[in-house]
Amino acid sequence: MSKPEIPGYTFGERSVPDAPIEMDEFERLKQSVMFSDEDDRYLRMAGEVLDGQTDEILDLWYGFVADHDFLLYYFTDGHGTPNEEYLERVRDRFGQWIRDTCDTPYGRDWLDYQFEIARRHHRTEKNQTDEVDAVPNIDLRYVIGFIYPITATIRTFLENSGYSDADVDKMYHAWFKSVTLQVSIWSYPYTTDDDW
Amino acid sequence: MSKPEIPGYTFGERSVPDAPIEMDEFERLKQSVMFSDEDDRYLRMAGEVLDGQTDEILDLWYGFVADHDFLLYYFTDGHGTPNEEYLERVRDRFGQWIRDTCDTPYGRDWLDYQFEIARRHHRTEKNQTDEVDAVPNIDLRYVIGFIYPITATIRTFLENSGYSDADVDKMYHAWFKSVTLQVSIWSYPYTTDDDW
Repeated sequence: MSKPEIPGYTFGERSVPDAPIEMDEFERLKQSVMFSDEDDRYLRMAGEVLDGQTDEILDLWYGFVADHDFLLYYFTDGHGTPNEEYLERVRDRFGQWIRDTCDTPYGRDWLDYQFEIARRHHRTEKNQTDEVDAVPNIDLRYVIGFIYPITATIRTFLENSGYSDADVDKMYHAWFKSVTLQVSIWSYPYTTDDDW
Repeated sequence: MSKPEIPGYTFGERSVPDAPIEMDEFERLKQSVMFSDEDDRYLRMAGEVLDGQTDEILDLWYGFVADHDFLLYYFTDGHGTPNEEYLERVRDRFGQWIRDTCDTPYGRDWLDYQFEIARRHHRTEKNQTDEVDAVPNIDLRYVIGFIYPITATIRTFLENSGYSDADVDKMYHAWFKSVTLQVSIWSYPYTTDDDW
């Protein structure tokens, strides 16, 4: 699949450092969220279903953030006004994140880019990609908390398809597993190597 | 609700330190997982449904751990054999955790005890409650990863009731929100105050 030109999106590029996670560790992490080859298949199916709905999904998620000052805060300099350009640039990559989440099976490039996303949430690299002057860190508690809205709200969009309830359910669970897996990876920079 | 005598279970006792989380921060965290008063009600309903099934639920979860060496590892001294007494003692508290998860609304005591659970996962306090010689830390990646199995597997047990599909769905979502909320709290000792 060719990758579109999205500012700051560097999946597969040489500028992305290797994630400090071996593939066998990644496999264990997949097992801990019960991720199987079937989930690979259902995520690809989900990718087709979600593809035409990306804007509606992002509208919903961005609406959720906008409705909560303490979440919108991460797009501000800490004193009120959100940075609209920053919001827009992240939005484009967030849409691509939906596609990448569904673009299975996950390989070394995928894992490396997940780790890049981890760094961009954490103070290690936040704001650098978009060269913005915003608060320095997305707090871990909300990175984890976001598992719920990002998972629960996807179901309605998966139902907008000709697929059976059983298939929708399998797509939903594959998505839930992947989101949990990714947040687990994203937590890495927030802790020490020993504790992760 | 009177609390049963479970070794190491100290909910509500003076020995439990205050969580370093204010109630208004806790409220924001609840908002981030879309937790509402309706979830309080559905968790109490779930509590009634799950109450007679605790052993079957724990059999399933313990079976999942036992099937994965890298998870069972946390009940070992790092060199193979799991500590059966440790497993049993944690199991009793895990059963009570199911009840406490459903015992809404969550107050200051609940939050303080969640934080105690956080410390007991992390090297800050792991092994101390049961005075065992096991590996010093439950790695954060699996604490987060566990959100999936602990959530997905509960649904079958919720269906073992006279409730409608719509009610089962609401109990399931309330459970999912609570588990995510709790893991978010449990992540605290793994990071710095500034990053959490």
